[in-house]
Amino acid sequence: MPETNLADTYRDLRRELHRHPEPAWCEFYTTARLIDELEQREVDELRYGPEIHGDARRNIPDTATLSEWRERAREAGAPDAVLDHIGEGYTGVVAVVNRGEGPTVALRVDIDALPITEADGDDHHPAAAGFRSTTEGYMHACGHDAHATIGLGVLDRVLDGEFAGTFKLIFQPAEETIAGGQSIAESGVVDDVDSFLALHIGLDHPSGEVVAGIDEFLAVRQFEATFEGESAHAGARPEDGDNAVQAMAAAVQNLYGIPRNSAGGTRVNAGRVGGGTASNIVPEEAFIDGEVRGETTHLMEYMWKRAERVLSGAATMHSCEVDIERLGDAPSAHSDAVLVDIVDRVARRTAGVESVVDHDSLGGSEDATYLMQRVQQRGGLAAYVGVGTNHPGGHHTPTFDVDERDIAVGIDLIAGVVADLAADESE
Amino acid sequence: MPETNLADTYRDLRRELHRHPEPAWCEFYTTARLIDELEQREVDELRYGPEIHGDARRNIPDTATLSEWRERAREAGAPDAVLDHIGEGYTGVVAVVNRGEGPTVALRVDIDALPITEADGDDHHPAAAGFRSTTEGYMHACGHDAHATIGLGVLDRVLDGEFAGTFKLIFQPAEETIAGGQSIAESGVVDDVDSFLALHIGLDHPSGEVVAGIDEFLAVRQFEATFEGESAHAGARPEDGDNAVQAMAAAVQNLYGIPRNSAGGTRVNAGRVGGGTASNIVPEEAFIDGEVRGETTHLMEYMWKRAERVLSGAATMHSCEVDIERLGDAPSAHSDAVLVDIVDRVARRTAGVESVVDHDSLGGSEDATYLMQRVQQRGGLAAYVGVGTNHPGGHHTPTFDVDERDIAVGIDLIAGVVADLAADESE
Amino acid sequence: MPETNLADTYRDLRRELHRHPEPAWCEFYTTARLIDELEQREVDELRYGPEIHGDARRNIPDTATLSEWRERAREAGAPDAVLDHIGEGYTGVVAVVNRGEGPTVALRVDIDALPITEADGDDHHPAAAGFRSTTEGYMHACGHDAHATIGLGVLDRVLDGEFAGTFKLIFQPAEETIAGGQSIAESGVVDDVDSFLALHIGLDHPSGEVVAGIDEFLAVRQFEATFEGESAHAGARPEDGDNAVQAMAAAVQNLYGIPRNSAGGTRVNAGRVGGGTASNIVPEEAFIDGEVRGETTHLMEYMWKRAERVLSGAATMHSCEVDIERLGDAPSAHSDAVLVDIVDRVARRTAGVESVVDHDSLGGSEDATYLMQRVQQRGGLAAYVGVGTNHPGGHHTPTFDVDERDIAVGIDLIAGVVADLAADESE
Amino acid sequence: MPETNLADTYRDLRRELHRHPEPAWCEFYTTARLIDELEQREVDELRYGPEIHGDARRNIPDTATLSEWRERAREAGAPDAVLDHIGEGYTGVVAVVNRGEGPTVALRVDIDALPITEADGDDHHPAAAGFRSTTEGYMHACGHDAHATIGLGVLDRVLDGEFAGTFKLIFQPAEETIAGGQSIAESGVVDDVDSFLALHIGLDHPSGEVVAGIDEFLAVRQFEATFEGESAHAGARPEDGDNAVQAMAAAVQNLYGIPRNSAGGTRVNAGRVGGGTASNIVPEEAFIDGEVRGETTHLMEYMWKRAERVLSGAATMHSCEVDIERLGDAPSAHSDAVLVDIVDRVARRTAGVESVVDHDSLGGSEDATYLMQRVQQRGGLAAYVGVGTNHPGGHHTPTFDVDERDIAVGIDLIAGVVADLAADESE
Repeated sequence: MPETNLADTYRDLRRELHRHPEPAWCEFYTTARLIDELEQREVDELRYGPEIHGDARRNIPDTATLSEWRERAREAGAPDAVLDHIGEGYTGVVAVVNRGEGPTVALRVDIDALPITEADGDDHHPAAAGFRSTTEGYMHACGHDAHATIGLGVLDRVLDGEFAGTFKLIFQPAEETIAGGQSIAESGVVDDVDSFLALHIGLDHPSGEVVAGIDEFLAVRQFEATFEGESAHAGARPEDGDNAVQAMAAAVQNLYGIPRNSAGGTRVNAGRVGGGTASNIVPEEAFIDGEVRGETTHLMEYMWKRAERVLSGAATMHSCEVDIERLGDAPSAHSDAVLVDIVDRVARRTAGVESVVDHDSLGGSEDATYLMQRVQQRGGLAAYVGVGTNHPGGHHTPTFDVDERDIAVGIDLIAGVVADLAADESE
Repeated sequence: MPETNLADTYRDLRRELHRHPEPAWCEFYTTARLIDELEQREVDELRYGPEIHGDARRNIPDTATLSEWRERAREAGAPDAVLDHIGEGYTGVVAVVNRGEGPTVALRVDIDALPITEADGDDHHPAAAGFRSTTEGYMHACGHDAHATIGLGVLDRVLDGEFAGTFKLIFQPAEETIAGGQSIAESGVVDDVDSFLALHIGLDHPSGEVVAGIDEFLAVRQFEATFEGESAHAGARPEDGDNAVQAMAAAVQNLYGIPRNSAGGTRVNAGRVGGGTASNIVPEEAFIDGEVRGETTHLMEYMWKRAERVLSGAATMHSCEVDIERLGDAPSAHSDAVLVDIVDRVARRTAGVESVVDHDSLGGSEDATYLMQRVQQRGGLAAYVGVGTNHPGGHHTPTFDVDERDIAVGIDLIAGVVADLAADESE
Repeated sequence: MPETNLADTYRDLRRELHRHPEPAWCEFYTTARLIDELEQREVDELRYGPEIHGDARRNIPDTATLSEWRERAREAGAPDAVLDHIGEGYTGVVAVVNRGEGPTVALRVDIDALPITEADGDDHHPAAAGFRSTTEGYMHACGHDAHATIGLGVLDRVLDGEFAGTFKLIFQPAEETIAGGQSIAESGVVDDVDSFLALHIGLDHPSGEVVAGIDEFLAVRQFEATFEGESAHAGARPEDGDNAVQAMAAAVQNLYGIPRNSAGGTRVNAGRVGGGTASNIVPEEAFIDGEVRGETTHLMEYMWKRAERVLSGAATMHSCEVDIERLGDAPSAHSDAVLVDIVDRVARRTAGVESVVDHDSLGGSEDATYLMQRVQQRGGLAAYVGVGTNHPGGHHTPTFDVDERDIAVGIDLIAGVVADLAADESE
Repeated sequence: MPETNLADTYRDLRRELHRHPEPAWCEFYTTARLIDELEQREVDELRYGPEIHGDARRNIPDTATLSEWRERAREAGAPDAVLDHIGEGYTGVVAVVNRGEGPTVALRVDIDALPITEADGDDHHPAAAGFRSTTEGYMHACGHDAHATIGLGVLDRVLDGEFAGTFKLIFQPAEETIAGGQSIAESGVVDDVDSFLALHIGLDHPSGEVVAGIDEFLAVRQFEATFEGESAHAGARPEDGDNAVQAMAAAVQNLYGIPRNSAGGTRVNAGRVGGGTASNIVPEEAFIDGEVRGETTHLMEYMWKRAERVLSGAATMHSCEVDIERLGDAPSAHSDAVLVDIVDRVARRTAGVESVVDHDSLGGSEDATYLMQRVQQRGGLAAYVGVGTNHPGGHHTPTFDVDERDIAVGIDLIAGVVADLAADESE
């Protein structure tokens, strides 16, 4: 494979973002840092704060958590004015470049990180090379630091190149909680878009491989179920308690036991649970932060219906109440063949690309599907592109990392597609 | 019932302690406040810090938690010198009064609070009268604020009265985590004690009732079980995960299902549980803070043996490892008849006491049993006394409260017993 | 201990009954065999069939099962006329002896066996001595064969002795399913009884020990819960099934997890469960034959209320329906002190008795309590007597057996009590 | 659709078989009835009994069950000589027709029924038309009665037609327990086969539709897990029990909770479970008859590995032993394109066929795959053909039925394929 190197400026940016992982809706520092980059460039419009979000943002952390991350961002150097404008977690930023007549092309990259403690062994490159997460317990374990960097790289190509039309670069927050995509979509930011692109690095595709159009996103619904019972002294009056932890445990056991479906893949996860206060008190409260998925929205709804019954029955068993709150949702979506063909064509001429796969299923979920649907419903086209990279650990694990050379491949590829889209139009 | 009133000074102290609930090993403010009271009195010895603790303190919170509570105490006015001497959670204080020839009598009162959010309705007296907990999430929900106040009241009577002998007043920390009693016992503080008294207010006995000797303490063992599996992306690679939350839930379900025992009462509680990090990640870690109890140590050990098997089997089921750490323990103990008879005699002449019960089972656990055993093994006598009070909510619930007049009854009763013990000896 | 031997006639009878264990309501052979014995004696009345039962017999096996056991009895030699009169499981028999003026004294012994496969090792006496159960899967594992024999022995003493009054000997069926006691009680058979006696052999008391009055019977309720879901092909259409076995398993897990109660002992058992038809079919049906108990009726009702919720919630979880049928019930009861004193007095002069315990708790349940209550409510007295025996295996286990010499002790003891009751009256 | 009718002789046979459903290895009557039919035809060889089976038959019912079904067959008219030759469940029969030079073509049809109680409503055709199952609790709920009839119909065409070569008709037992296919394969019966055909009716394909080659059989493994604990009196000594039903229930809960797999579909079912003997005895034994499946053998092995851990951990939890016995197994297999093309060609000219699907996945399992593999490994070809029918209820449900006209379609189709295979060869 011909040597492909990432320019220092992009490498430094990626590593700085990697050092500052921020979870969904708390990307204060990341947003400020990207705004700083964008302000150094000839961007025509720079939008952020409430104006790029819809009315119904979901899954917002509580005020104390937002404040904590905002303070952390402030201490790390984010300007007060920017933080004030972001306000109560209206993170993310959209840059618009107007270059006369031509199509409106949008690129969406996501910017949030995960509540995972990063590996610190010498065989984990970010640790060995000194850019491991500085916030214990949080980590860019899904490559969004690379995505944001690719976004900026593509913008630079658009600014430096022959592009004719309008280019919108969307740095989207809160992908991991499948909340940001819908919020951005509802703001109308992509309503005039002709061609929409989103991308993901890795996904078990090796360095040198490109997936021209990813499909079969798992539809997903995230929820929080809160069980409320009655506390009691566990030694003196156990019979007075209605044990919320017993209800929660029964629910966990049976959520995973929802029948498989012959119509296609399904998923369920009780990803974060908790309950109770001390070993000698019958627990009064417990919760499950969970999700269900399906290869189609129908399959996801099948899982949801069964999950609701399990949660409700588990509460009944232990005389508890359960409150089920739906948090994020993402539908299925598909990549348009016309766009996929263009990505395929460009990929075959891009340095560092050795194989092109036309089609792959994600096997996961993505709230870019909200934006794809929004564009497609208004007559535009959409494609979701995969950029391979040799990642040592799996996505969402402590040893995840990307080969930085593949960030350069991603920039070349997407910039090429954007250029071709404008050129095709002008023919 | 003849009117019994609590002197303002004791009422104020009780309410101030109620306002400042501190959990086990974090009683920095409480200890400092009591030291301040003791320093205003003619006490011969005042011991606190590491010297009143054994080597093997258990169930100590982590350094960050200790620091947080120490800072809170400092802000509330606790002197730096005292806090420094308390150090890493060596809370509690022992006061000694020497009054010539006579028996050595010890009184133990406990001082820690619970992780419970106090009720704030108008029908909850501490809220209505303005002395509700100022630390959200923590509460004196077991009457230890009253116990500490009774302790100081008895000390005052000893100082003012005819007492001949040695009186030791022990303010013990960390009763709720059954850790403080053993620690104090192992320091040797009670090794020379002839008569040992401990007390509890409430326990479902109404105002005006005294239990001369409580027995049948449930033996207890607290533990923390930590499950470790393997994380994975819940959508893309669920099969790569070894789900620690599934293991934990299976354990909870089956811990509560340990067979009842015909030889006597048993208990089990998974009082605090948690696991996982986010809804889209297969949980890698989970934990149970739990406890088992039995009417005898043998019954507790029966529960423990079964619990270990459940925890181990649950881990196996989901390819996880489980680490089981024993935290606090307390044995059974009994009240000596000779002492119980004296308490009974004194109670019958104490104003405000309308009925005397010779004997009752606790139905809970108490680490005073460590101190009782220590004294009894060295030839001394011990009794655990109950002072009734009309408490609106149960112990360990958000609406627990005591009738303050019963604090006065407690002082009169115990002071009377201490006086009689000295007088009996001199006859 | 002075040698006590059991007369050959009684030993032979006991062993014959042991060879022919019959479960509740199916005691066709046993009843016929006892009637044969009674007909050889000068009994004034001999009642059996529907007339000794109330209207609301519960827990009756289905017709096919009844027929099977009736046929088995016929093949073993039971006369057709007797079997016809017993009809649809109206098993058991009452013998009445009128001996002029005097009190009415009743003795109740139970006659049913259990669905347990008897041990066949050489160390199991019935196997070694050739009187092991001839019906595989069933066994006299609770000593009712000895009880019936004692009953006949006492009758012989009454017939041979000075007894003045009326003696009623009740051979009660269906004790193990706590159904026979209520049925006999409701027939009115004991409504004129002045002194009522029931007895049990063993109960962990050794040979030579007598318990003059057993108390603290656990109140009990037996139930059958039937779950109904929807079947489906487990490979091709798992999603179409509503899995009754999953519902049942969730119920089992959580029934055993009903909180312990500080007010006293409780029990729960899912003693027989089943469901489904083949490994490749999602199970449409499942059932639990279970029971709850409590040291008081109140505690049993606490368990019942919780159990109903668990069963209902478990069904909801898996979209099944559950039908909960209450089968047998037995209340608590107590032995009257006056009767207990007489038993105590007689026991102390009975050969083979070395120690007399006035009082013991059963720790199990017994539907003799229905008869005891019936007598006590009408002004009579009742006592439940324990006759110790060294039994190798526990009650309800495959190696249970009795020392036959203790059957002789039981006859002497109870016959003595009956004699004294009549004698006391005539004084 | 042009009217297609089933000749009376075939309809009568199908209905008679439907009236006499027999489970795996118990097809005594069915085998005898088919032998009777075959003996009326000019068949060159007729083989049955041990000679058509391998050494390692699995999943054989116990002797009592075999005897019971053999007796039932005898009462229904099966000749003693035939029953004697079938012996201990060596059911099934193979007919061979030699017609000179030409290929060896085999057709396999299965003949066993299921333990399902057939619907008896008027809307269930077999009930309304008087050929409902005469053996309560058993039913031809998967169409094997139609398969056997199609087999005989094809034989008649071969006998009546121009066929040149060798035709083997295999009536295979024990498909539902995935045991018969392997046994027949190991006898060597298909070792000389050039073209192998198997068929299934229904499978959610409507009347008029043919699937030329079914693929993606789920690999499957059936097992029986037996838990053994310790019994005890549930009231008097619950602590002495090691509860096998609790272990079984924990296993069921967690078997269904084995993680889904992103590599493809998986299945798990605890299809038949049971345990315990009576409500007042702590259950000593319990069992699960279950199965795991996967779209590939690798996925099935993934499920198996996890299932073993769950079963083992569940036993540990409740101090029980578990014995896991592997019963039937079936691998994946594929239909050969050459054969599929021929089926497709013939189907398009067959009356009553309106649409032909080249390929479909089964979504279930089939032990015909053993025979397919055996033929393919020796150089032969194999195809598994689907014949649509409008079936009111799903496979393995009480209302399953077939449209009898589709039996005629099946005969025409398969007979046509057999004819073409011989004709092609001779070209």
